Amino acid sequence: MNSDRILLEHGGGGLLSNELISRLFLPMFRNPYLECLEDGAVFTLGQTRCCLSTDSYVVKPLFFPGGDIGSLAVHGTVNDLAMCGARPLFLSTGFIIEEGFPINDLEKITRSMAEAAKRAGVQVVTGDTKVVNQGAADGLYINTSGIGIIDYAGPISVKTILPGDVVIINGPIGNHGAAILSRREELGLSSEILSDSAPLNDLVAKILAATPRIHCMRDATRGGLGAILAEIAIQSGLEITVDEDLIPVRDDVRGICEILGFDPLFLANEGKAAIFCPADDAGKVLAAMHDHEQGRDAVIIGSVTRKSRGRLILNTTIGGTREVDLPTGELVPRIC
Amino acid sequence: MNSDRILLEHGGGGLLSNELISRLFLPMFRNPYLECLEDGAVFTLGQTRCCLSTDSYVVKPLFFPGGDIGSLAVHGTVNDLAMCGARPLFLSTGFIIEEGFPINDLEKITRSMAEAAKRAGVQVVTGDTKVVNQGAADGLYINTSGIGIIDYAGPISVKTILPGDVVIINGPIGNHGAAILSRREELGLSSEILSDSAPLNDLVAKILAATPRIHCMRDATRGGLGAILAEIAIQSGLEITVDEDLIPVRDDVRGICEILGFDPLFLANEGKAAIFCPADDAGKVLAAMHDHEQGRDAVIIGSVTRKSRGRLILNTTIGGTREVDLPTGELVPRIC
Repeated sequence: MNSDRILLEHGGGGLLSNELISRLFLPMFRNPYLECLEDGAVFTLGQTRCCLSTDSYVVKPLFFPGGDIGSLAVHGTVNDLAMCGARPLFLSTGFIIEEGFPINDLEKITRSMAEAAKRAGVQVVTGDTKVVNQGAADGLYINTSGIGIIDYAGPISVKTILPGDVVIINGPIGNHGAAILSRREELGLSSEILSDSAPLNDLVAKILAATPRIHCMRDATRGGLGAILAEIAIQSGLEITVDEDLIPVRDDVRGICEILGFDPLFLANEGKAAIFCPADDAGKVLAAMHDHEQGRDAVIIGSVTRKSRGRLILNTTIGGTREVDLPTGELVPRIC
Repeated sequence: MNSDRILLEHGGGGLLSNELISRLFLPMFRNPYLECLEDGAVFTLGQTRCCLSTDSYVVKPLFFPGGDIGSLAVHGTVNDLAMCGARPLFLSTGFIIEEGFPINDLEKITRSMAEAAKRAGVQVVTGDTKVVNQGAADGLYINTSGIGIIDYAGPISVKTILPGDVVIINGPIGNHGAAILSRREELGLSSEILSDSAPLNDLVAKILAATPRIHCMRDATRGGLGAILAEIAIQSGLEITVDEDLIPVRDDVRGICEILGFDPLFLANEGKAAIFCPADDAGKVLAAMHDHEQGRDAVIIGSVTRKSRGRLILNTTIGGTREVDLPTGELVPRIC
């Protein structure tokens, strides 16, 4: 490691996160499930293909425009399962609560989790609560783990992506990051930007029903669309080219980015995913997505151009091209 | 709730934990899996009966005699699955790390997790890492969730316990709590007490192979043996009577308890479980346990005497009897 201490960037979903995974966790836990490096682990129980996924949520503030840590904790794990092609069924939840935390807030957050679970069609079936002394946590952290069943025949993995595949995004990017930023910075905007935090499992079911040739799906959370596309390029050893002009960004999100000097490409999302499939299937996939609330604004933003050492190329709005590197960490810490 | 703020006792596995579960979590998430109130949730995936369990670990200090947070996080979840009669297979792990945490320590803890997983025959197949800023965590918290398969035909549940069942414990109690206390208090003892932190899944497999009539198993973690027996009495609506004289406690653990004014009955364990089965099966079960490293000192400590409003009766060493109430919380916060 380049540092002997953990830095915020080690949790940012970028270069330092990857270093921690590849140099510490993978060698220690070495097994074929973990080595897939997808959003969840796929294995067989009895005759049934299953997926297990986990995420801890440390978002700050706990309540933000468009959601809170409770709904986020449900959507995040539901979406990770969906990205592996699984139908999410059961969630566990682990609360780590700081002594003195208002029970009213815990109640609001729990209600929000329950509503999000109902909407996503999953059940919270087991849980755990730990309380740490004042000053040993920042209010509340939540872990959710989830299990789902995979019915889809085709393998969904970064390894199945092929040159010629198109890259589809299901809507405008950066809303979650911008919502958190606007609340933290108290920018006093005239209209509030809402997080896009939402369950994607129903949309994914429609996408999978549209074609047996979905190659890969990944939700663009920490590090944003830029980080996950750069990561997929590296993992697949392919060159991915996207057109900046084609990437949907809402005007108000773009405005916040201009004020604060951020690039929406690296702002977090909690309801956006990149979908890879052959160009021939794109029409069917887009049609299925446009019929769905979470995919109304779905659009092709680029394609997989060729084998390479693994890089992401951006055709920029001003007419140039640039290679987009995996960011070191996330622009905004504690975004999820 | 009696308080409008979260207290340490809400995470202690006692009365206030139960209040939080029964008044907040159960009504919000209401479903039959959660309502079983066992150590994990049991459901069917395809044709396969499975169990999902989760726990977060916030133990302080992170390294203690006989283990560390890493091995504890594996053993705890493996044991919760085993208590439900499941064969633990796959674990997820979620790290919440404080910025500035030494990477060397993270490496030691990860190695300890990997070794514990190998010993227990489970694989860590997926994970997540979050980093929070300095002062927003106390070094490191770990969540593990786990999934296992249930092959055992009989239902294992507090609801199947019957009058006439014996209560077996697999060895001396209080070692984990005493080990943590001795490290925290720097008592300067001549010999170190080691935590009993250990995987119980292999022992449980032997127990389940010995008879089809195991009724209930529960590991005596937070709140100790006293808390889990009082809880089982309440949940089952039965009277459980145990003899203080029969409960094994090591001399050095008893010594620490005398110095600090604690009752070993309420000290945490991380490798001890209470087993309920009909008296007729006790011989076979004890024989199977005595053959196993984790059950060498297994002994009957009492029995289920009759239907009642649910209470735990202790026949004390000095010849009296007293009713043991569910403790408010745990004697020692952050024990696991």
